[in-house]
Amino acid sequence: MGKELLKQAIQSAQASKKQGNPALSKEEAISQGLELINASKICLLGTNSEDGFPNIKAMLNLKHDGLKHIWFSTNTSSKRVQQLRKDNRACVYYVDEKNFRGLMLIGTVDILQDIESRKMLWSQGAEVYYPLGVEDPDYSVLRFTAQRGNYYQNLNNITFDIA
Amino acid sequence: MGKELLKQAIQSAQASKKQGNPALSKEEAISQGLELINASKICLLGTNSEDGFPNIKAMLNLKHDGLKHIWFSTNTSSKRVQQLRKDNRACVYYVDEKNFRGLMLIGTVDILQDIESRKMLWSQGAEVYYPLGVEDPDYSVLRFTAQRGNYYQNLNNITFDIA
Repeated sequence: MGKELLKQAIQSAQASKKQGNPALSKEEAISQGLELINASKICLLGTNSEDGFPNIKAMLNLKHDGLKHIWFSTNTSSKRVQQLRKDNRACVYYVDEKNFRGLMLIGTVDILQDIESRKMLWSQGAEVYYPLGVEDPDYSVLRFTAQRGNYYQNLNNITFDIA
Repeated sequence: MGKELLKQAIQSAQASKKQGNPALSKEEAISQGLELINASKICLLGTNSEDGFPNIKAMLNLKHDGLKHIWFSTNTSSKRVQQLRKDNRACVYYVDEKNFRGLMLIGTVDILQDIESRKMLWSQGAEVYYPLGVEDPDYSVLRFTAQRGNYYQNLNNITFDIA
């Protein structure tokens, strides 16, 4: 697996270099980042564990508002919620492995249990996760709020604030 | 994108539940985790940034030794190396979005520049990243050493030590 993909990555980087590695503007990064989010089935949520190690968990890409807000559904009893209660700093990462590009958003997470948020992410059959239904105390909604982002493709990358 | 995938996840979880959500043994988790690593083109490296936020970056899945050691190539000048010099605690995550399973490994990273490690991960054309070749000071090898792992599929998950 390894070296074959490295060859592809090298070829992609070489093609970009031949074009002079054109620098990305903030507007291009945001536009391409949004396109990546819309094309992604999942994203990766990074949190701080209590023992100081970073943790990563794949989350379903259910709902977002631009790059500013992203919502996830999860079990209130999950390790992620326990960690976020103690430290709500997080990152959300989207990756396109075919085109060697990715978007990292840095921000904080609010843990919501209001009925509007619960209903917004509910789907038929979700009782398999939350047996008591949409009002199950073990059902929480995470709302991520981005402060800044980093978008890269091949050898180009740009960091930008998110207002 | 969102709700359709949620429906697939719910169906997969329901199918697993019908089979009684059979618990994973440590041996099964390690065996399935290794299979996931071998099938993965990329993985996600989690690090601690200086300002206390978790960071995530996709890395090419180049080489591993069981679940214990994973090697990555990167630029010495990269943000990842700067972060790992100050705090070498990290995690490595592999995800299979089609089958709703993932493997998180928790451990630490050593930054290597010995010639054997450099040659081990080198590939023809890698000068696009490291213009001075295999001895480029801007070429580093990251060696991740796992302490413990967490493997999940659908609603089942298990945490285990890695000797």
